[in-house]
Amino acid sequence: MAHLVSTSCSLKISSSCKPCFRPFNQGSSAFPTSFTLQTSKSPFRRLLLHEERPQRSCEVHASTFPTSQEAPTKTSSGSHQSSHEPSKQQRVMVIGGDGYCGWATALHLSNKGYDVAIVDSLIRRLFDHQLGLDSLTPISSIHSRLRCWKSLTGKSIELYIGDICDFEFLSETFQSFEPDAVVHFGEQRSAPYSMIDRSRAVFTQKNNVLGTLNVLFAIKEFREQCHLVKLGTMGEYGTPNIDIEEGYITITHNGRSDTLPYPKQASSFYHLSKVHDSNNIAFTCKAWGIRATDLNQGVVYGVRTDETEMHEELSNRFDYDGVFGTALNRFCVQAAVEHPLTVYGKGGQTRGYLDIRDTVQCVELAIANPARPGEFRVFNQFTEQFSVNELATLITKAGEKLGLNVQTISVPNPRVEAEEHYYNAKHTKLIELGLKPHLLSDSLLDSLLNFAIKYKGRVDTKQIMPSVSWRKIGAKTRTLTA
Amino acid sequence: MAHLVSTSCSLKISSSCKPCFRPFNQGSSAFPTSFTLQTSKSPFRRLLLHEERPQRSCEVHASTFPTSQEAPTKTSSGSHQSSHEPSKQQRVMVIGGDGYCGWATALHLSNKGYDVAIVDSLIRRLFDHQLGLDSLTPISSIHSRLRCWKSLTGKSIELYIGDICDFEFLSETFQSFEPDAVVHFGEQRSAPYSMIDRSRAVFTQKNNVLGTLNVLFAIKEFREQCHLVKLGTMGEYGTPNIDIEEGYITITHNGRSDTLPYPKQASSFYHLSKVHDSNNIAFTCKAWGIRATDLNQGVVYGVRTDETEMHEELSNRFDYDGVFGTALNRFCVQAAVEHPLTVYGKGGQTRGYLDIRDTVQCVELAIANPARPGEFRVFNQFTEQFSVNELATLITKAGEKLGLNVQTISVPNPRVEAEEHYYNAKHTKLIELGLKPHLLSDSLLDSLLNFAIKYKGRVDTKQIMPSVSWRKIGAKTRTLTA
Repeated sequence: MAHLVSTSCSLKISSSCKPCFRPFNQGSSAFPTSFTLQTSKSPFRRLLLHEERPQRSCEVHASTFPTSQEAPTKTSSGSHQSSHEPSKQQRVMVIGGDGYCGWATALHLSNKGYDVAIVDSLIRRLFDHQLGLDSLTPISSIHSRLRCWKSLTGKSIELYIGDICDFEFLSETFQSFEPDAVVHFGEQRSAPYSMIDRSRAVFTQKNNVLGTLNVLFAIKEFREQCHLVKLGTMGEYGTPNIDIEEGYITITHNGRSDTLPYPKQASSFYHLSKVHDSNNIAFTCKAWGIRATDLNQGVVYGVRTDETEMHEELSNRFDYDGVFGTALNRFCVQAAVEHPLTVYGKGGQTRGYLDIRDTVQCVELAIANPARPGEFRVFNQFTEQFSVNELATLITKAGEKLGLNVQTISVPNPRVEAEEHYYNAKHTKLIELGLKPHLLSDSLLDSLLNFAIKYKGRVDTKQIMPSVSWRKIGAKTRTLTA
Repeated sequence: MAHLVSTSCSLKISSSCKPCFRPFNQGSSAFPTSFTLQTSKSPFRRLLLHEERPQRSCEVHASTFPTSQEAPTKTSSGSHQSSHEPSKQQRVMVIGGDGYCGWATALHLSNKGYDVAIVDSLIRRLFDHQLGLDSLTPISSIHSRLRCWKSLTGKSIELYIGDICDFEFLSETFQSFEPDAVVHFGEQRSAPYSMIDRSRAVFTQKNNVLGTLNVLFAIKEFREQCHLVKLGTMGEYGTPNIDIEEGYITITHNGRSDTLPYPKQASSFYHLSKVHDSNNIAFTCKAWGIRATDLNQGVVYGVRTDETEMHEELSNRFDYDGVFGTALNRFCVQAAVEHPLTVYGKGGQTRGYLDIRDTVQCVELAIANPARPGEFRVFNQFTEQFSVNELATLITKAGEKLGLNVQTISVPNPRVEAEEHYYNAKHTKLIELGLKPHLLSDSLLDSLLNFAIKYKGRVDTKQIMPSVSWRKIGAKTRTLTA
């Protein structure tokens, strides 16, 4: 068997502490803060939590077990409220559940009563270290986040730390958690990151494409009925001169007609990796009967969701740098520190946008209304279109209301993209399933700007300008200077 | 620099022996038959040829040099007729030049006066060992092949043995050979191979996609004007219900119009890898100005070309097994050993086909008429369409003329594909460049059947039936039983 040697481990936590609305800036000492993954020649690993302050009111249980036949039974652990107990709840595995969209989604689904596990290698945090970047918001470790969530709500989220490109790990997580749905955010998600140098380009495609292949094989092997909800991107379509449909287009040509996959024109190695994924998934739906939903998501803005609002320990990350920051969030930070808004080129680049509160809503709608076996369903997941210039104008007005001096400059476009183009993308399927959009309003912009102002002391202005060029990318591995 | 440590080596051979029309079955002792790649802590490796029979009439020089500044000058090697000498000849690198199409192409281009280097990891030969398969024709080592070619024609073909997924190796070959054109056959090229198990599926996409990414980066970094001629497949298109165009289709939709990449519907992890390549290449043409031609090739049949005919030592491989064998070649072998022709399912599967003599012609035409900088050009490379049933009928008739008892059976289709469908694929662009097709005639079928009969003693009938199922592929690594 491919999974004879077990290497995965499952962190299970229960806590009897009361909800602790401790301000975030008081440090994280109220919770255990580190763990050690012990390795030995034994096929099993043990995850130990080091309690830095053992005299606490919170009882924390942390245990690992090999997901083999010798594992403790699912209900054996005394005070644990084990999520393995027989339940009619839908079990949802969120791959990449420590990231920007993934974290918000995991909490939202847990709050809505789904039984949730997070699978994450935590490599997104490593990227920040390597590139000298940091979230605008301070973010807690995934362990602290989950302990806090449990203490606030009584709900457990299981945690599997590992790389889905390691099939042995992934197969153990599937056999241990037995998901009914997998939400797959677990990819390198930045276009500029994929354009830093050859090694990052190759990493992005290898990591994303092979990781997703492994997920498809794990579903086929262990959970055939499991619904795959995969995060794609609106960037897969590029900017064609015709309306963008949701995944498919009916073409009449030389007197004959067929409905075919919508042509893709991705414009970075990252966006291309998502196109590759879509093609691979579509094939497995047809060949193996996999049920899949591809969520071609637009640019996400905002940071707060109902769940992350509950405690600062649950804060989501907020990226404003030239590599991971996206247009609207980055503009808010620029306005807050009175750095000119950086419009790339002419600023006519138009894209679909959505509030992160709609991201979590869309994923929930997809899970609640699964694709049929063999169906490869594509939803365009955004709520409004804006050009970069339109966003700059909106931020300028909102900033002026708050007394900020907001300027806009055009910087040479680091990307290769049309700067003036037709753009009309359909996005009705999620609305039909019940999506109630949070549109970009003045009040939301006020709130976002105030949020950025709150944390403006943490802004590193050197990270704001674009540092990665689509044309200048080279074979040599690049170290971004501090 | 990424290539500070040199690991590539260049085997250069000159020979003063006369053309030796030694029958192949007398063994290969007339030529050195093995080499050793010595490794040490030195950054340089040395390739040694062990002459098993030193008392020979052929003078064989084999040398390696690190492609660094300390390398011998290009004209320093005495009796060598070095292909590095200044020349106006176009320099063509054939990646995968030891394979079925690659070998025929390398010889053809060398014969036509191009300065040719073969880059190959020789892994295709390893696949045969691992799967217990063998070419119908005995094939010589790449070293013997090249020595024979040199002795017959006086033309040198340089050899770089290594894996293009190793960018250090690839960058050395680029800097050493300085290609004007790269013909890229260097991919895992079997759909059934990619569907054996998870590890072969992942290998196929990793090897093909990342290898091609490396080629693109090598061109950008070292040979910006180099023309990439990339082997794609007609299988990228699938079987849409409308005419298949050459790479692009003009779509009018809701009153607007655009010419977009033709929608792809690949039907194996192998075919998908070619779709991924096409998308990646198209992007680099746009972003970096790469000049590329994607040859969406049909199913190749035949084995002899003008050059491989010159000596048995130059024989091309001929695959008839269920993994690497393709329809028409496999049917010829089945007819020769009076094994029923195995039609998968209903047999209405229609594809484009071409003679291997047209493969080499098409590649030469593409090189001689390069794409413009920034152009991503797609040619459909086949000459005729046939359904599987039509091929079976043609082989049956040709076999009967030769006194063979040819039966046909339908076997359960191991693939997931339409067995009855519309198929009309355009293929005019190569004709416009001057392709003179070798159509499938009675005489060619006679010749192919006689060729199969000649070698029928080498046929392993256990390899004929399909052994790989599109639906049953699993996560567990499979060993095909002997």
